[in-house]
Amino acid sequence: MRFPTPLLLRAQSPLQSQSKTLLSLLLRSRRLSSAPSPMAGPSSSEATLREALAEKQAAVDTQAEAVRTLKARPDVSQAEIDSAVESLKGLKLEVAAVAKRLQAEVNANGDGSTGGLSKDAFRLAVVNTLERRLFFIPSFKIYRGVAGFYDYGPPGCAVKSNVLAFWRQHFVLEENMLEVDCPCVTPEVVLKASGHVDKFTDLMVKDEKTGTCYRADHLLKDYCKEKLEKDLTLAPAKASELKHILAVLDDLSSEELGAKLKEYGITAPDTKNPLSDPYPFNLMFQTSIGPTGLSTGYMRPETAQGIFVNFKDLYYYNGNRLPFAAAQIGQAFRNEISPRQGLLRVREFTLAEIEHFVDPDDKSHPKFADVADLEFLMFPREDQMAGESARKIVLGEAVSKRTINNETLGYFIGRVFLFLTHLGIDKDRLRFRQHLPNEMAHYAADCWDAEIECSFGWIECVGIADRSAYDLRAHTDKSGIPLVAHEKFSEPREVEKLVITPSKKDLGLAFKGSQKMVVEALEAMTEKEALEMKATLESKGEAEFLVCTLGKTVNITKNMVTINMEKKKEHQRVFTPSVIEPSFGIGRIIYCLYEHSFYTRPSKSEDEQLNVFRFPPLVAPIKCTVFPLIKTQKLDDVARIIAKSLTAAGISNLIDVTGTSIGKRYARTDEIGVPFAVTVDSTTTVTIRERDSKEQIRVEIGEVASVVKEVTDGHSTWADVMWRFPTHAASADERLDD
Amino acid sequence: MRFPTPLLLRAQSPLQSQSKTLLSLLLRSRRLSSAPSPMAGPSSSEATLREALAEKQAAVDTQAEAVRTLKARPDVSQAEIDSAVESLKGLKLEVAAVAKRLQAEVNANGDGSTGGLSKDAFRLAVVNTLERRLFFIPSFKIYRGVAGFYDYGPPGCAVKSNVLAFWRQHFVLEENMLEVDCPCVTPEVVLKASGHVDKFTDLMVKDEKTGTCYRADHLLKDYCKEKLEKDLTLAPAKASELKHILAVLDDLSSEELGAKLKEYGITAPDTKNPLSDPYPFNLMFQTSIGPTGLSTGYMRPETAQGIFVNFKDLYYYNGNRLPFAAAQIGQAFRNEISPRQGLLRVREFTLAEIEHFVDPDDKSHPKFADVADLEFLMFPREDQMAGESARKIVLGEAVSKRTINNETLGYFIGRVFLFLTHLGIDKDRLRFRQHLPNEMAHYAADCWDAEIECSFGWIECVGIADRSAYDLRAHTDKSGIPLVAHEKFSEPREVEKLVITPSKKDLGLAFKGSQKMVVEALEAMTEKEALEMKATLESKGEAEFLVCTLGKTVNITKNMVTINMEKKKEHQRVFTPSVIEPSFGIGRIIYCLYEHSFYTRPSKSEDEQLNVFRFPPLVAPIKCTVFPLIKTQKLDDVARIIAKSLTAAGISNLIDVTGTSIGKRYARTDEIGVPFAVTVDSTTTVTIRERDSKEQIRVEIGEVASVVKEVTDGHSTWADVMWRFPTHAASADERLDD
Repeated sequence: MRFPTPLLLRAQSPLQSQSKTLLSLLLRSRRLSSAPSPMAGPSSSEATLREALAEKQAAVDTQAEAVRTLKARPDVSQAEIDSAVESLKGLKLEVAAVAKRLQAEVNANGDGSTGGLSKDAFRLAVVNTLERRLFFIPSFKIYRGVAGFYDYGPPGCAVKSNVLAFWRQHFVLEENMLEVDCPCVTPEVVLKASGHVDKFTDLMVKDEKTGTCYRADHLLKDYCKEKLEKDLTLAPAKASELKHILAVLDDLSSEELGAKLKEYGITAPDTKNPLSDPYPFNLMFQTSIGPTGLSTGYMRPETAQGIFVNFKDLYYYNGNRLPFAAAQIGQAFRNEISPRQGLLRVREFTLAEIEHFVDPDDKSHPKFADVADLEFLMFPREDQMAGESARKIVLGEAVSKRTINNETLGYFIGRVFLFLTHLGIDKDRLRFRQHLPNEMAHYAADCWDAEIECSFGWIECVGIADRSAYDLRAHTDKSGIPLVAHEKFSEPREVEKLVITPSKKDLGLAFKGSQKMVVEALEAMTEKEALEMKATLESKGEAEFLVCTLGKTVNITKNMVTINMEKKKEHQRVFTPSVIEPSFGIGRIIYCLYEHSFYTRPSKSEDEQLNVFRFPPLVAPIKCTVFPLIKTQKLDDVARIIAKSLTAAGISNLIDVTGTSIGKRYARTDEIGVPFAVTVDSTTTVTIRERDSKEQIRVEIGEVASVVKEVTDGHSTWADVMWRFPTHAASADERLDD
Repeated sequence: MRFPTPLLLRAQSPLQSQSKTLLSLLLRSRRLSSAPSPMAGPSSSEATLREALAEKQAAVDTQAEAVRTLKARPDVSQAEIDSAVESLKGLKLEVAAVAKRLQAEVNANGDGSTGGLSKDAFRLAVVNTLERRLFFIPSFKIYRGVAGFYDYGPPGCAVKSNVLAFWRQHFVLEENMLEVDCPCVTPEVVLKASGHVDKFTDLMVKDEKTGTCYRADHLLKDYCKEKLEKDLTLAPAKASELKHILAVLDDLSSEELGAKLKEYGITAPDTKNPLSDPYPFNLMFQTSIGPTGLSTGYMRPETAQGIFVNFKDLYYYNGNRLPFAAAQIGQAFRNEISPRQGLLRVREFTLAEIEHFVDPDDKSHPKFADVADLEFLMFPREDQMAGESARKIVLGEAVSKRTINNETLGYFIGRVFLFLTHLGIDKDRLRFRQHLPNEMAHYAADCWDAEIECSFGWIECVGIADRSAYDLRAHTDKSGIPLVAHEKFSEPREVEKLVITPSKKDLGLAFKGSQKMVVEALEAMTEKEALEMKATLESKGEAEFLVCTLGKTVNITKNMVTINMEKKKEHQRVFTPSVIEPSFGIGRIIYCLYEHSFYTRPSKSEDEQLNVFRFPPLVAPIKCTVFPLIKTQKLDDVARIIAKSLTAAGISNLIDVTGTSIGKRYARTDEIGVPFAVTVDSTTTVTIRERDSKEQIRVEIGEVASVVKEVTDGHSTWADVMWRFPTHAASADERLDD
């Protein structure tokens, strides 16, 4: 049986007219903004302040009017006037005070910018360091770049490769997942089936004179935010309206968005020209496969489809057994209308996706006990709607109370928590937020986003969704290849089944060319419809029957169809598996990791602030540096021997024999997050310094590689090795520099 | 100063009118076919045989004519006729014998198909195993696939990830390379500068009736090969002509190709319809960046350009010091006209590229001594042109005799040899072939391809080229950003320099609006031109001067320009670095590795052939399997404990508790190249079996993970551990099965 072409997209809510795919969870920060509760209006203290401000302002106006009236009257004494003016001044001071408090409140709530300038300043410091040390480079910079494209420079590339290696270890190896690697170029039919060709769109408006394109929702969002932040005289009701718009921005239809843009008189930001009505722009990069120009292809918007189309082979590879998971790491593409938010909103990015296929009747997970005791910040749907904040919940309880729909979903939420915190994400700035009803697709059982707080606000970095059987069904329909699983019964089971047997001969005589459509419609009846028809046929000998494909009602007589409940022996159950999909936006995780790892500390002379990334060794782009303390051939030679032994042990290292002061060399490598520095000050033993504590131990040359490997591989901690080796007090030379 | 837009492509010879980029070395097997010497005609024995065959055939024809004449004459006795017929029979037998030898010779020389059917059968066996065990999957299979796209299934994906991890260890870590990661989507300007937009093309012909597209050179090649292989009566001269065409196929211009297709009457293979003239088709996938449709982009055809455009930042990152190398691993794309050769010719593939930047005046390499003693198959230009075969040469000698242009190029050739043989490539089927003069770009100093022999012939898998300063200059020209290096002199050097100083005032008075063009033309004079003008001005007071940009000759008087040789102190030398580029086609290497690793051996009962991949542990997709010998809860539990300890040690493993016979379980995992199998037959000690020798040792449960890790990490060999542990004789159960 063929389903109709899906009208709804992956993870799309029936309420949403535009594409809101799971991808969007990774690529856009849908609820970036808003107060802790996205459903609530202005936070209560902000609303109170707005009201107070309006009252005080009204009082000022009244008093000002009173002063004018007094001044106009010849019968009023100067003393009376002075007194009224004093009152006015007092009231004005009160207005200013309330306005100041309101501004602070707005800054604290608004779009993740708590602390106002300080967050911006922090971000600037991080991004400057990242760009100066080539963690990233705007792509094609010598040609003035292209918005939304970034290169990973040497340390960034190493961090990325470490994160991906750990992802493989933590998920693929640990869970025996089947990893695949599919092309980026994807033929149209695949993305037609998935819904992307029709629905993977954003609404765009054009400057009617210059043709410049803007995202319609961005313009409306900017307008609302600007009003809320700058216009303190905004009436509380109006503020509430604008906040509501920000909360439901993603749910607005093309018409609603267009109407709001008109209502607020929003024009093109650069030219103030009038704007076109919003219309959908497909976000996939389109191309053509082969030389004929007849075969359309797209650069994949996600890696998941490559797994779904291979389900049959992968299920076979797994011995026709469920559950199993497939995984894929790879590039995905999204032709943004006008990329903003720097490294968080890009046009090409690395995704790591898992599709865990399970029997819809049994979503238990054998290893759930391993994560059940974890306790971390969760933000269930109900708490969001009640205007509360995220709170710590024990994972096992969240599943047993059905806050989280099932064990397998819960297991992956726990594993994602462990993955992110191992990388160095601060667990107090990581929360798992459940999707609200209007965010979720009609077919999805439950969805949670791992959101990480950074200077841009709470950013969705991982989406963990129970997508039921939607994707496999969509490809079954389009390809005609059944993507199903089988459960063999140990003994055949007797089941009662409704059997509809149209008599093709009689139907042919009655309906001639339309026979096929009538047969199909009869076979497609639900159990309820069929039983009703059976009753009618038995009582009246004929029944009226609507054939949609003919667009009319026909008369069915008793001889044309047999409808019976029959007992059948079944040897197996055939079903479409459900899929639980954890989907990781690697670039976003890495950016948040940069922010969570960055700090500054004064130099020894306290005349400047030094930048440090406190990456765990697992993530650090280079694990160890080797410096001769002073520039001599002997020490240089020792340094080279140590560097060679580190390389042989597979530890990425950097040797610096420039003879720059040791303090400067430390500062340089602290700034790219190198956790350990070996300083060569003798030909027998050397010191190893830890980046954050700046503590040093003294180790024999032959032991350096194994000690560093122990701590970078995570077999020992720095504290462990501090016990085993003599500590080293910085020498005069070093004190001078450090 | 701006250079003209480059007309010649990367690695393109001035003789070639179509794109022959370095990429082509990776993506097409340019000289797939041909005898050991691509320049030679038919090999001498083949030519001799063709001549002998023609002579014998002529003798047969003469004798047959003689027999006919005898028979027609009434005066000839039957005995005489019988004797002539016997001679004819003898001559025919000789023809058949020579034809047989010729066929064998043709098969031995032709297109790598030595052994004829047996190579095809071998390939079929490998590819069937690869596809059945999901090493690869034709992409989008449920939608009937798209030519030129393949997925890596679970074992293939693991092999690829192992190969890339080793590449990172062997090149990036070992050489402290700067790894970068740039987007696939690339704006037009970058690929305009590199020459790809204008020249990255293949010649295409169209079926004039159906519009089906073919690669023009493929059709000509097929025709020549078919003639050579099937038509034994081909005159030696004609055979020579066809062999010559095969050898120079890539050098033929559009017109030459078209003329040959016409001359041989070649039509569309499927329909026999006439073909269009050949015309160029650009092989890049084109797309559009952003919503306006005004910004053209392409999917990168190689990763190298991402490194070149970042040269300035990377040079700075390296402390403004040369030499240094940058590296990149990533997807590249090539919209083939009609992909053939299965996994070797694909439309999307993974490249790993290194750009090693050096001072053109000093291409020595500090670590060359580490590889100088390596001896392996090389195929220098001269040997190819003399019709000889590849031979073993010591690398140090090849460099000292200047067979290989310089130490750095030689160093990388040696490192590539070590890389490939460590992966498991057979060193007797690996050769380094130097480019012939007509294959090399005019600017290239020297190029060598690592070619691996497989059932398709000798396949270029790695290109190692000294590309001089070409690429950096091309981007300097196009972007206006100087991509140069500086050498600071320890003391300033005095140099004589020609200084041309146009007098703008006098030129303005004389030429008004054209002044700027005249100034620029004067400044652009070569040293020779300037000195000639200086002499003329001094003798005659004026000189004629052609200004190209004005398209006319103007009169220059003495007051308009000063030309002097001046002594200047220079503090540094500014130059464009040369680049040495090793470029790896990862998919091709992996495919050749599959062929080199595959073998079959009889099952114990000798009733079937079992497939084995003899992957070294480094490459093997799964390092170790764990089987309980018989199905009991106790043994299952032990197996799970061992599997867990292997996972914790980072060793990919597979547990199989299905209770299938142990022999079948071994066969299954031999077929995906798992090197070690742990069989659990007791709760204290277990056996570890090595795949190829089938030898077994007995090891305590707690030691299993560390023993397996030792051998898979390469710290010990199997022979080492065989010494340390008791060997295990297969039990009755096992003997029954194995």
